[in-house]
Amino acid sequence: MSAEDAAMFIQAGDTVGMSGFTGSGYPKAVPTALAKRISAEHAAGRPMRVKVWTGASTGPELDGALAEADGIELRLPYNSDPIARERINRGEMDYLDMHLSQVAPMAWQGFLGQLDVAVVEVTAIRADGSVVPSSSVGNNKTWLDRAKSVILEVNRWQNPALEGMHDIYYGTALPPNRVPIPLLRPDDRIGDPYLRCDPDKVVAVVETDAPDRNLPFAPPDASAKAIAEHLLEFLAHEVTKGRLPSSLLPIQSGVGNIANAVLTGLVDGPFHDLTAYTEVIQDGMLDLMDAGRLRMASATAFSLSPDAAKRINDEMVRYRSKMILRPQEISNHPELIRRLGCLAMNGLIEADIYGNVNSTCVMGSRIQNGIGGSGDFARNAFISIFMTPSTAKGGAISAIVPQVSHVDHIMQDVAVLVTEQGLADLRGLPPKQRAALVIERCAHPDYRDGLRDYYERALRGAYGRHAPSLPGEALSWHQRFMEHGTMRTG
Amino acid sequence: MSAEDAAMFIQAGDTVGMSGFTGSGYPKAVPTALAKRISAEHAAGRPMRVKVWTGASTGPELDGALAEADGIELRLPYNSDPIARERINRGEMDYLDMHLSQVAPMAWQGFLGQLDVAVVEVTAIRADGSVVPSSSVGNNKTWLDRAKSVILEVNRWQNPALEGMHDIYYGTALPPNRVPIPLLRPDDRIGDPYLRCDPDKVVAVVETDAPDRNLPFAPPDASAKAIAEHLLEFLAHEVTKGRLPSSLLPIQSGVGNIANAVLTGLVDGPFHDLTAYTEVIQDGMLDLMDAGRLRMASATAFSLSPDAAKRINDEMVRYRSKMILRPQEISNHPELIRRLGCLAMNGLIEADIYGNVNSTCVMGSRIQNGIGGSGDFARNAFISIFMTPSTAKGGAISAIVPQVSHVDHIMQDVAVLVTEQGLADLRGLPPKQRAALVIERCAHPDYRDGLRDYYERALRGAYGRHAPSLPGEALSWHQRFMEHGTMRTG
Repeated sequence: MSAEDAAMFIQAGDTVGMSGFTGSGYPKAVPTALAKRISAEHAAGRPMRVKVWTGASTGPELDGALAEADGIELRLPYNSDPIARERINRGEMDYLDMHLSQVAPMAWQGFLGQLDVAVVEVTAIRADGSVVPSSSVGNNKTWLDRAKSVILEVNRWQNPALEGMHDIYYGTALPPNRVPIPLLRPDDRIGDPYLRCDPDKVVAVVETDAPDRNLPFAPPDASAKAIAEHLLEFLAHEVTKGRLPSSLLPIQSGVGNIANAVLTGLVDGPFHDLTAYTEVIQDGMLDLMDAGRLRMASATAFSLSPDAAKRINDEMVRYRSKMILRPQEISNHPELIRRLGCLAMNGLIEADIYGNVNSTCVMGSRIQNGIGGSGDFARNAFISIFMTPSTAKGGAISAIVPQVSHVDHIMQDVAVLVTEQGLADLRGLPPKQRAALVIERCAHPDYRDGLRDYYERALRGAYGRHAPSLPGEALSWHQRFMEHGTMRTG
Repeated sequence: MSAEDAAMFIQAGDTVGMSGFTGSGYPKAVPTALAKRISAEHAAGRPMRVKVWTGASTGPELDGALAEADGIELRLPYNSDPIARERINRGEMDYLDMHLSQVAPMAWQGFLGQLDVAVVEVTAIRADGSVVPSSSVGNNKTWLDRAKSVILEVNRWQNPALEGMHDIYYGTALPPNRVPIPLLRPDDRIGDPYLRCDPDKVVAVVETDAPDRNLPFAPPDASAKAIAEHLLEFLAHEVTKGRLPSSLLPIQSGVGNIANAVLTGLVDGPFHDLTAYTEVIQDGMLDLMDAGRLRMASATAFSLSPDAAKRINDEMVRYRSKMILRPQEISNHPELIRRLGCLAMNGLIEADIYGNVNSTCVMGSRIQNGIGGSGDFARNAFISIFMTPSTAKGGAISAIVPQVSHVDHIMQDVAVLVTEQGLADLRGLPPKQRAALVIERCAHPDYRDGLRDYYERALRGAYGRHAPSLPGEALSWHQRFMEHGTMRTG
């Protein structure tokens, strides 16, 4: 069926569950056709918008096209598309920023409302009606289960050799019938390689041949390299102290250049037999595999550069034995993260002197991307590590502030903070000792005096001196940036 | 041995792991003797302080006496003692406020430093050296495992019939050797009724005969009753909608009058065959059991009034079959809370219009008690509910503010907010819809106009309109209270 005809199965006001996680495995044709239809409806003076649920971020053919057409009423659980971001921040579109592990269970529990249509990209449809997933799994199992009707996009661009890489766990349930998830190692396969799909619900099958949104990574800059160096030194130190095995523990790594720099750094590091239990398989992990360092990576999606996508597609059979893609409720499940003892490494927008972290809202209100899986991992990790350059906007913004303008991760969930300036190991430290360390180790020298000055006055003048703060001044750095374009004084 | 002699095994600078959780099962003699010794040392000009780890709060003979003597250098993971609180807020004593589920694993992982001495109250010592726990389990398993030497207080006041009520799980491990915790129902027994204790490490046994710190509950006031009514109506509605079974799901209930009012309300409610999977067994749960409504309560401690303590002690054998006390790493384990689908009900200090919650720090810096288990439960619950009167200090403080001055629970972890004014069901709502509902349903009428005014100006003037805020003004209500003793204007 044509994408245009398939898009006719979606009505104004519908909730549509789409595939896609970090720019891979999202439907490429139907959302664009839907966007065109919405534009035509708008031009004819007929309002039409839909609610869009996905795994995480997608690509311009989905979020970009639909946001451009003003076709999205509500978006969940994650967005990184620039056009959608602008609409959200202009207040034209609602956005529900969720813990990625909770999307599937909450949808099933009925807390998010009815799901009307699923639009899911697959690699192939099998004779029994089950489908071979494509380059991401995300929430597809739940969308196919819960939607009233299903549209499948079969993408020829996806490698047929993906078949067998996926592990779809069908043992989840609603309480009181939940049971332990029988996964003990990142390597464990606990489900089926295929997604079940009721053929009676399938209203359209659309063929496509289009690549994922694979974006080149910028090579790590000096700051990313310095962060990676501090972190690798810390991990080596933990092994020496006997607090980590020499193969470390399963790595979770956020997306981006700093994360990739850390992974690249591990290629030449002293660690062997590494594993990853994480959301996405990135370029750096391929390097680690090729170097014989990374034994197994479990994730829910690929997030690759075009070069890496080609590399993996050329040798899918070889890589397939070292990779498993799972539903995101499993890749991000608190039960499994705590059990495996993941080493969580995530980026941030700003941290405060006590190590509270803002991952999402610039100046407290302007959404950047979303919390994603960082909350799933940070709270349950063996060691929860956050990484950032110490400044942004050419030095006009300090990533270390007196008080974060929005909180995504409370200080209890932040064990280690790293900038290019240094690493603060905050484990076991009460608030005032955290503050001293964060200021001295992590803040940029240009902002250290200002932070010391605030903290010392808070120590004397705070309402309580457990975690001293001055509410009248705590967010003044943000106010200054909004008024003068810089957090610097004078 | 005398408590005074036993206390000599504790040296200046030692880390001491003591039993005790919400005023039950804490050692009553050795800490007091230690406090006397510390006072004498101080009088002689010799500095002496120790680090004190417990399960949660204890009693005046422990925290009160040691804080009075200025004998505590660092306290973790929870405190509610008023003398210790004052010292912390004067900056004289360090306090590490931790997720209660994480204390035992972090201690074992070596992230908190060495544990020198364990001081643990028990009901009895058995011939094989194992011990019968008393009225709380807390972190005792871990303290006995990890401490270099052990002091036992055998408290005759504790009911011998406690024997058999406890369930001490010995299947925990360090990663990569962790396995699923085989608990499927609050009723399941997965361990031993006794705590293992290496006799070679026991340096002292002290006999005591002293009651737990059992404090009378004030009867619920009109505000607590109204909150309970809103909440029970909500639960009944969820059952009607098919989102909850008629026996609900395992209840977790924070400590205090509002929580007790909710439990009391359940006595006359439509729900049967209830269970609790929670931290403490409170008065209200005994009422529910006697009314035949509560089938089973799993917790880590008792937290009872003197009347209820007498009631339970008089009929321990009967109650014993309906109660299980477990280590707090199990009572609060994210894996189990998520699996069981607990209904989490916790109190708070303040919430903001988006439903971010401050549970710990008055005016952002003055610690009240601590985060306790609220983070373990709120993030993993089936429904995470927070409850509070809409004002405090005779109306001078609004519990609903433009922005919380400290964050313990991010908006993603707050599904339902209840005050005596009403209930806001925030599930599935993006930030702006949350704000509208919180202001209209939960805020006190005296503060509603002020909140609306702030929110409407934020909607127009915020840096981003995803979750609009005005950093220059967001904490001004707190500043006003600190300057003028009230959040009211004019």
